[in-house]
Amino acid sequence: MLPPSVMARLQTDFGDWCHSGLSIMEVSHRGPEFRAVAADLLARFRRLLQVPANYEILLLPGGAQLQFAGIPMNLAGQGERVDYAITGHWSRLAAKEAQRYADLRVVVDMHDTHCRGIAPVDAWDCSDQAAYCYYTDNETVNGVEFSSIPEGIATDLVCDMSSNILSRPVDVSRFGLLFACSQKNLGPAGLTLVIIRQDLLARAPSPFTPSIMSYALQQEKESMKNTPVTFAWYVVSLVLEWIEAQGGLAAMDALAKQRANLLYDYIDSSDRYENLIDPAVRSRMNVVFTLKDASQQAAFLREADTAGLKFLKGHVAVGGMRASLYNAMPVSGVERLIDFMDAFG
Amino acid sequence: MLPPSVMARLQTDFGDWCHSGLSIMEVSHRGPEFRAVAADLLARFRRLLQVPANYEILLLPGGAQLQFAGIPMNLAGQGERVDYAITGHWSRLAAKEAQRYADLRVVVDMHDTHCRGIAPVDAWDCSDQAAYCYYTDNETVNGVEFSSIPEGIATDLVCDMSSNILSRPVDVSRFGLLFACSQKNLGPAGLTLVIIRQDLLARAPSPFTPSIMSYALQQEKESMKNTPVTFAWYVVSLVLEWIEAQGGLAAMDALAKQRANLLYDYIDSSDRYENLIDPAVRSRMNVVFTLKDASQQAAFLREADTAGLKFLKGHVAVGGMRASLYNAMPVSGVERLIDFMDAFG
Repeated sequence: MLPPSVMARLQTDFGDWCHSGLSIMEVSHRGPEFRAVAADLLARFRRLLQVPANYEILLLPGGAQLQFAGIPMNLAGQGERVDYAITGHWSRLAAKEAQRYADLRVVVDMHDTHCRGIAPVDAWDCSDQAAYCYYTDNETVNGVEFSSIPEGIATDLVCDMSSNILSRPVDVSRFGLLFACSQKNLGPAGLTLVIIRQDLLARAPSPFTPSIMSYALQQEKESMKNTPVTFAWYVVSLVLEWIEAQGGLAAMDALAKQRANLLYDYIDSSDRYENLIDPAVRSRMNVVFTLKDASQQAAFLREADTAGLKFLKGHVAVGGMRASLYNAMPVSGVERLIDFMDAFG
Repeated sequence: MLPPSVMARLQTDFGDWCHSGLSIMEVSHRGPEFRAVAADLLARFRRLLQVPANYEILLLPGGAQLQFAGIPMNLAGQGERVDYAITGHWSRLAAKEAQRYADLRVVVDMHDTHCRGIAPVDAWDCSDQAAYCYYTDNETVNGVEFSSIPEGIATDLVCDMSSNILSRPVDVSRFGLLFACSQKNLGPAGLTLVIIRQDLLARAPSPFTPSIMSYALQQEKESMKNTPVTFAWYVVSLVLEWIEAQGGLAAMDALAKQRANLLYDYIDSSDRYENLIDPAVRSRMNVVFTLKDASQQAAFLREADTAGLKFLKGHVAVGGMRASLYNAMPVSGVERLIDFMDAFG
């Protein structure tokens, strides 16, 4: 969901954007109007995430999954080793895609224990010869999230922050590359944020890399090698403005903890619901839970939908329920869910 | 630009889409609400373009330029010959991208004569051994457009219709594949239409093809291998609804001819403006023109912008002016431009 103030602004702007007489959907991405949006968007990302000067910010089309291929294509030489930590659905998918482009090694696979925890980094089978070490900061399907950035890995860290970007302060200087699609915490689908340390842009992409996917070329073209999804760029800039007005990432972090703690505390104290994730790595963004009496699940989902609590069904890979508590979700939304859970059955 | 009725509908729908209490930007692409949008969109494409039953319709992310790589990756074996007709800026770019994936042959290059015409097909150096023959139906930068589908080519035709799709009826059965980005005649940027004959889906994509770019896989996943740009899908469905209400592609064709003829007739009768394109292949979508006194150009563009006639500057590769007359442009818009041109100077 989007913050209500962003929705209101979009509705006002819709037909006459910034008094241009045009909709943001109609302006050319080469005109001064859109150039201003793009500059504003980049400045806000740099400010909010405190991106160091030796990092570049790219805004790419195609979604995060295109980067599952783009990352090894750009950062690994053919046959070069790359390390992947598999902690859930998305990291497994990323590894599956990357193995076509590099010598992929799975340094840890939490599916052995149903992805209910994350093994400590010193148990990961990493190599300092790898081109990078890849992990997924938050696994939406499994409801697990790293509590902090892994320590002690000798190679460049590459991190998928698609589902928890801008939900807490992050030390960008710890990464070689981090990326995030836009449809969770940034706004609607339509762009993928890639933050990359400048020296990595010098690595020659594989000869089979489509131009649109070359980080060096997109950097040269200011992320406009082709027409960007202009409307998504604009909406994301409004979302970032909203986050800054709320107090930035420290405020988002406090809010995320408040929302998640409310729901986990309720589940833990309940005799009807349960969450089996190691409390140390429970996701603040996606709370998975099941009914102890599984036969009630269909009725739960049906009644929740009727009550306006939509999209609570868990991913088909794990079943159960999942409450997604992204940045724009107010605490009152969680309270409403708990009230419903409490009254159910 | 978008049709005013579509803009009005979007503004109404914005915060409470189809009485769901949610914005279309907020619904999950896996939910029944968006599934209905997707089904409606595919049905409208199939109806408007009279897509035969043995063709599949894909809606892919990343823009048309991603398909410049995707087409040879999916349709040509490594080292296999592919034929490209270069009639302007975009076909040249497509050929440059494709040559990394296949044995690319340029069968005609109109840059030798400044892309002011298109050589007849029997002068093209095609091979019946090629995996396909590629051309660009309308070249926006150069203002040239094929007047009909090339005849007599033995291999599968592959056509970029990004800038003139839905502007006239088209016999889809003449093509192996046709594709179009959305930001000209379909709506805002955010999806790329690919219509492909089913038997071509059986060709194994190159092992380096990112999953998102595999036609066979996207067909299997109903174009949702990853999260689609849901908002763009919805806007495009409204644009197609509008086209059907106007009378379909025959009506769009008549309107396109009326708009273009008005402007070309004015230019041809003027002693101050000129268009040097072979009248047989003048584009109905993009009318390029120059001032015979080139020193007046900067003043022309400045005054036009002030008068609300925006985005008239020609592409940097050719200079001059360009009026883009896509489907949503009313005849009155052309009349206003002509009034301005007539009063200028």
